[in-house]
Amino acid sequence: MNASSSTISNVESLDIGKNLNVIAGGITSPKGFKAAGAIAGIKKNGKPDMAIIVSDIPAACAAVFTTNVMKAAPILWNQRVLAESQTAQAIVINSGNANACTGTQGMANAEAMAVSCGAATGISANKVLVASTGVIGVQLPMDKVISGIVETSKLLSASADAGYDAAVAITTTDTYEKQVCVQFSLSGKIVTIGAMAKGSGMIHPNMATMLSFVTTDANITAELLQKSLKESVASSYNMISVDGDTSTNDMVTVMANGQAGNPLIETEGDDFLLFSKALDFLNIEVAKTIAKDGEGATKFLEVTVTKAPSLHDARVIARSVVSSSLVKAAFFGEDANWGRVICAMGYSGAQFDPAKVSISMSSAGGQLPLMADGEPLPLDEELAKKVLAEKQILVDISLETGDCHATAWGCDLSYDYVKINGAYRT
Amino acid sequence: MNASSSTISNVESLDIGKNLNVIAGGITSPKGFKAAGAIAGIKKNGKPDMAIIVSDIPAACAAVFTTNVMKAAPILWNQRVLAESQTAQAIVINSGNANACTGTQGMANAEAMAVSCGAATGISANKVLVASTGVIGVQLPMDKVISGIVETSKLLSASADAGYDAAVAITTTDTYEKQVCVQFSLSGKIVTIGAMAKGSGMIHPNMATMLSFVTTDANITAELLQKSLKESVASSYNMISVDGDTSTNDMVTVMANGQAGNPLIETEGDDFLLFSKALDFLNIEVAKTIAKDGEGATKFLEVTVTKAPSLHDARVIARSVVSSSLVKAAFFGEDANWGRVICAMGYSGAQFDPAKVSISMSSAGGQLPLMADGEPLPLDEELAKKVLAEKQILVDISLETGDCHATAWGCDLSYDYVKINGAYRT
Repeated sequence: MNASSSTISNVESLDIGKNLNVIAGGITSPKGFKAAGAIAGIKKNGKPDMAIIVSDIPAACAAVFTTNVMKAAPILWNQRVLAESQTAQAIVINSGNANACTGTQGMANAEAMAVSCGAATGISANKVLVASTGVIGVQLPMDKVISGIVETSKLLSASADAGYDAAVAITTTDTYEKQVCVQFSLSGKIVTIGAMAKGSGMIHPNMATMLSFVTTDANITAELLQKSLKESVASSYNMISVDGDTSTNDMVTVMANGQAGNPLIETEGDDFLLFSKALDFLNIEVAKTIAKDGEGATKFLEVTVTKAPSLHDARVIARSVVSSSLVKAAFFGEDANWGRVICAMGYSGAQFDPAKVSISMSSAGGQLPLMADGEPLPLDEELAKKVLAEKQILVDISLETGDCHATAWGCDLSYDYVKINGAYRT
Repeated sequence: MNASSSTISNVESLDIGKNLNVIAGGITSPKGFKAAGAIAGIKKNGKPDMAIIVSDIPAACAAVFTTNVMKAAPILWNQRVLAESQTAQAIVINSGNANACTGTQGMANAEAMAVSCGAATGISANKVLVASTGVIGVQLPMDKVISGIVETSKLLSASADAGYDAAVAITTTDTYEKQVCVQFSLSGKIVTIGAMAKGSGMIHPNMATMLSFVTTDANITAELLQKSLKESVASSYNMISVDGDTSTNDMVTVMANGQAGNPLIETEGDDFLLFSKALDFLNIEVAKTIAKDGEGATKFLEVTVTKAPSLHDARVIARSVVSSSLVKAAFFGEDANWGRVICAMGYSGAQFDPAKVSISMSSAGGQLPLMADGEPLPLDEELAKKVLAEKQILVDISLETGDCHATAWGCDLSYDYVKINGAYRT
């Protein structure tokens, strides 16, 4: 654990709970942001597939990208833009085609998207980020993409409806759009952070995530924004899994345009900690909505590991359990097969003492103890049925070998996951 | 790559192909081995669930066990037995209950199985290995287990039928029993190696495997037998995946009783290399039958990575592709979604140059080029349909950055996988 992550955990004492309000809204809720979503015709089903986010002024920008070696063209473009200056003013996003594994043509197409969006919005192309999601290995239909960008840019608005339209346009197999918004006070000024994201397959982020776009009117340096984002990703997006596949296109960005008017956050003081805690809260909420809407999901799973020797071990174990196909299938079948939970703990790579492990499951249906101090407990099948019939299930694992803890989120593995992914391109 | 594995690859030049015969048979085919399989009543469905293998004389014994931290009680028992002396004379195996995560009672039960089997067969308990497979976290019904061992021991026979009965008794969700047998000549003597194994879920071996039991009448020291097995496991059992879950009970054992009468193999000369190549061939065949019979599988997948910078990279990439839920679901749907193949390569952890990758798929239906030198190729949908309609599909990946290669085997992800695992305990 590095010094910075221990700093963040100190935020607990700042009592942001009373200060933080979750409000209806999304990326257009912070001051000085506009958005739009529209139909460009990239998706075969005629649904919205083009979104644009614009800040009124250039914004400090932080981002974390996929660790997949096969980075999609937009990822490579964005890395180039942000290496030049840690600022951005617009993001153009298409769904229906990932522009991944598309070679040199794909790189040219990603750049063309930035140039077109820049021209349509009056922003320099090297301040425009690009994101794509959808099928891999197929070239973008650039005629539709370019005209789609032009038409979408005409709809840019700061309204809540415009934010909603953008959130809808970036979805693929998602069953609902994903927006989260929080407000809190910073040195006497109201600061707002909004987000939109897409799931819901190929979700197993590693140092980055699916697509999540965060906007805020907070006044903060790009360096501290990046630091805050990087730490938050480790406890939010990186702790969810739908299917164990880390995408070629994962990215999360935060644009901070300073329009809230708070004194610039340029040191790691209380304002930085408050902002970081709010961003962390928001990111965890976004991550949970993605896990809940996992492809084919019928149940939402939350796995908490406590009393672990290190934060790393706690995270590795929680994520291994929530990623296991066998664990996920058992929850779909409402089968209290906790042996699969402990099996997934065992192959996670983390070390622990099997003789000290305790496991229980709980839900609105009750609390079900399963193992205590390494010994299996008699299973109450009636209670198990009640607990597992619920839509939201918690798995509590205690290792009794330390004081670190972590939580991971996921969903069950259903027939519909197979159905959705058996014919994704068609 | 260590010196020993490069030694093994030199075996290619020994031309064992003409010398090696695959014959009908299994664990009772080598001289001096008896087996039996019967119904002990552990399984609720009344199917055979108890098997015993016995060698007429103490045999040199090699074994590789699961790397899962949560090792089942029989694994711990066997490690103790083989640490004492590298010999064994009997193995007792039950299906229907894994005796895993069963605490101190589970350890006592594993030992009781060895003691009972030893008493029933006149063999010292510290020469008896124990294996269990089935549900995790439930204590064995020891009354049924003990009487089952006694009854099964009465059926011990060197016949092919007895070997078949044992192979059937160790299965769980397998749809067929798994036996492989090879014969070859060693310094003028006919040597036979036979095997039986069980799949077919929780299959993602790591330095070990599900359950596989190999018998041979070869005359070889325990040290060289262990060396040969360890190297073989890396290219056979460790290269298959059904669902990414590494079991608590994985084990593969080889018993060699020397009854073939060949001069003792005690150095790494030609006889050792011939034996190792035969064992490797057998283990790969066994591993492939397990992958083919993966839970709910409708298709058999073979992923070959060539021109890789190292054997490790080739293996990691091949295994990542064959383990991807998204790749597997696409094959179930007969969807040529090769982007998922390259995505799984990218998150495998191995490094490679995306701009040099070529990918194709092939089957009895034809050969389908998909990507060449990092650029996507136009997809012939008609040809894709023909290629993917077959039951056995090959994925060829060339990295163009070295001369190492590896192959992994797996199966598709079907509705039935979810169905089987949604209600495994019930």
